[in-house]
Amino acid sequence: MVQEETIAAIATATGEAGIGIVRVSGGEALEKVRRLFYDASGRSVESLPPRRMLYGQIRNPENSEVVDEVLMVYMKAPHTYTREDVVEIQCHGGTQSVRRIMALLLAQGIRGAAPGEFTKRAFLNGRLDLSQAEAVMDLISARTERSHQAAMDQLEGFLSRKVRLLRERMLALLAEMEVSIDFSEEEDVEVATYDSLMNASRELITEIDGLIASARTGKILREGIKTIIVGKPNVGKSSLLNALLRESRAIVTDIPGTTRDAIEEQLNLKGIPMVLMDTAGIRETEDLVEQLGVERTRLLFEKADLVIMMLDASTHLSREDQEILSMIKNKKTLILVNKTDLPSLFSETELPDWVDRNQLLRISLLEEAGMEALEEALITLVFQGETLEKEKEMVTNLRHQQALEVAGKALQDGLQALENQLPLDFLQVDYQTAMDSLGEIVGETVREDLVDYIFSHFCIGK
Amino acid sequence: MVQEETIAAIATATGEAGIGIVRVSGGEALEKVRRLFYDASGRSVESLPPRRMLYGQIRNPENSEVVDEVLMVYMKAPHTYTREDVVEIQCHGGTQSVRRIMALLLAQGIRGAAPGEFTKRAFLNGRLDLSQAEAVMDLISARTERSHQAAMDQLEGFLSRKVRLLRERMLALLAEMEVSIDFSEEEDVEVATYDSLMNASRELITEIDGLIASARTGKILREGIKTIIVGKPNVGKSSLLNALLRESRAIVTDIPGTTRDAIEEQLNLKGIPMVLMDTAGIRETEDLVEQLGVERTRLLFEKADLVIMMLDASTHLSREDQEILSMIKNKKTLILVNKTDLPSLFSETELPDWVDRNQLLRISLLEEAGMEALEEALITLVFQGETLEKEKEMVTNLRHQQALEVAGKALQDGLQALENQLPLDFLQVDYQTAMDSLGEIVGETVREDLVDYIFSHFCIGK
Repeated sequence: MVQEETIAAIATATGEAGIGIVRVSGGEALEKVRRLFYDASGRSVESLPPRRMLYGQIRNPENSEVVDEVLMVYMKAPHTYTREDVVEIQCHGGTQSVRRIMALLLAQGIRGAAPGEFTKRAFLNGRLDLSQAEAVMDLISARTERSHQAAMDQLEGFLSRKVRLLRERMLALLAEMEVSIDFSEEEDVEVATYDSLMNASRELITEIDGLIASARTGKILREGIKTIIVGKPNVGKSSLLNALLRESRAIVTDIPGTTRDAIEEQLNLKGIPMVLMDTAGIRETEDLVEQLGVERTRLLFEKADLVIMMLDASTHLSREDQEILSMIKNKKTLILVNKTDLPSLFSETELPDWVDRNQLLRISLLEEAGMEALEEALITLVFQGETLEKEKEMVTNLRHQQALEVAGKALQDGLQALENQLPLDFLQVDYQTAMDSLGEIVGETVREDLVDYIFSHFCIGK
Repeated sequence: MVQEETIAAIATATGEAGIGIVRVSGGEALEKVRRLFYDASGRSVESLPPRRMLYGQIRNPENSEVVDEVLMVYMKAPHTYTREDVVEIQCHGGTQSVRRIMALLLAQGIRGAAPGEFTKRAFLNGRLDLSQAEAVMDLISARTERSHQAAMDQLEGFLSRKVRLLRERMLALLAEMEVSIDFSEEEDVEVATYDSLMNASRELITEIDGLIASARTGKILREGIKTIIVGKPNVGKSSLLNALLRESRAIVTDIPGTTRDAIEEQLNLKGIPMVLMDTAGIRETEDLVEQLGVERTRLLFEKADLVIMMLDASTHLSREDQEILSMIKNKKTLILVNKTDLPSLFSETELPDWVDRNQLLRISLLEEAGMEALEEALITLVFQGETLEKEKEMVTNLRHQQALEVAGKALQDGLQALENQLPLDFLQVDYQTAMDSLGEIVGETVREDLVDYIFSHFCIGK
């Protein structure tokens, strides 16, 4: 472990709250914090036993003024988050206590931490692998409990273990090739080797494909189901939005920094994050196409994972409805027939043939009926054909997905070469590529600039 | 100490951050958290030594799923914030970890804490007096370092000790009266008593007046200098606002929940909070009077602690300038003559006689010259005639100020009665009133509904 500079950062969110934390990590953490810390009676503290939560004061050494009453804990390397000495100062919440304590620490020569620097040290010092480190950030930014649990599973190492096992099996294959190449004069060995290598490769490919398949669910848990609501004016789009907001188990937009009239509205749909796109448009003009123009609406549709197309049960299908339908022909769509409280004129036979009648739901937003069924239908539709059962080894990260795809492709190439009975030494490079690519997920074969890039997207204090 | 229900709350601010804390207080805190806490290897923990920071996991007892990796510390009553058993769970920041852990705690039968309930228990259990408890909230909501320090001094008990000393001296006076009444036949004693009581009363009144005088500074530190910028169109009001924003050592509006285009802009002026009122108006129309109308502008002036009146150095005083000047005649005003970079036409002789020439400053916002002098001038003007030296016994709270005023008034009444040689038993009620009123500050004689009211304005988790 390299001895790094001692760093400090505010580790809690900004805002009025009971408690704020300033975290310090590095070899000089204890020594430097001790210059500021005094016990309740104002005396300097000689001995600071590790892991013991001490009550005391932070004082400004220049004028002995008490800056805050704090709880302080010293955690001794290597059994800490960063594997370095860590000191945590728990002070009052709000902006000033943490800022003033940070200022005193900086005046002691401690450096302010860069984004993600604590976790980067945890990674560099071997406490977490790279996919676990990335999970830390996902955990913090998770918007629903399911997204959070997926990140937690990744932090717990489910994905890492799976990836490491796959790599070990690849390493075994490479070893087998090596042996076979050495003994390549003996014809029998080689035939047996080709068969066994092909079988092993196919199994690996299946498992990697399984992981890649999980990435669709993973992406939704991490980023949310991007959804767009369309329909002619007055069909009830605003009412639907408001009803969904009411049902949302926790409105995600109560998080500081996200505003209600943003272009996206985030909901928690039975634990699945749902991102309603262009909700500002829905609310204001009720007519997305008119407001945005056909081209921008098309682009919006392209980004959407899901379209909710609203129809009016009390009217026949209009030309406008048909136009909208033609625009979303290739999208995953839920047809929501609203206003079932009114005498019905609309019939399913009016819909084009390509519309799947199973993806049609009748609802009355006025009577607030059918919301539960709607939520079920949305989730079923999104995870159509896939079980939503929790795979603990789930891929939620595009970077991991791409690494798996590279590995899968390399194994496919290798398999084809095996089928063509090419010499084994031609294949080694494919298997090596696959191994390296999986190594990037856990950070064993990753480039330093990528590591820097990943951690620079963390928040400060983590 | 009454055994209260065990309560829990999220104690850190909401938002993406490294660390979040859930705090639990009450007799069942340890027992109930232990049902959720497991060590790093997933085993239930038998012994939890107090004040030791333990690393482990919070698991959902229903499915054993790891909800988060945490640090946990148990603090044993009575050496805790609430004087009850306290358990703190440090988990990952963001919204989901703290929410999910809270949900698990509530499922264990722990009650969600009301706003300020931890601090209320600290008060009811004698750890803090009422003015100290109020200081906790001021500390959290402080917007500048000076405001924060004033709250810290109050939390440290400077004001409380002063108030208690005053009360003790009043008690001594009351005792003296009691003795004199008992021996009232002996004429000599009584004369001596009247003189000594009058002297003591005058001293008390002086000290109470001193505290009341500190309330003006205290109010500014707590609430900010309410300032309004006025002047004719194009005189440079927006430029001044922007220059002040740039100079502000920490823009206070980076706090989530406050927005830049609000009606008020908060600045940090050398540690003093400054609240620029109606800045939206300044920015948009550049003409406050036209926008708001004369009456609303007058009301705004009334609320302001300070008016910055801007004049244009390159023009003579206009009728519009004179109109504005007439509106602010009785306000504390800084006359800021802008555009000194242009040929000067304006002369001080054009100003009405009542304008204090010492409160006039020439500046060029275009050349960014004179900002330091402006900041100095603003602070000098605000604290005119008062030292800004830090009185540790400062009154920052309107409630305390009013209690002091009641006490002062009662002592004045008493003094007058003494001067009129009224019988001492008539005076006792005045001195008792003064004592009780001071008792309200520290919470010794305060009504329960007032206590409830005060704590209901705290944030949850404190």
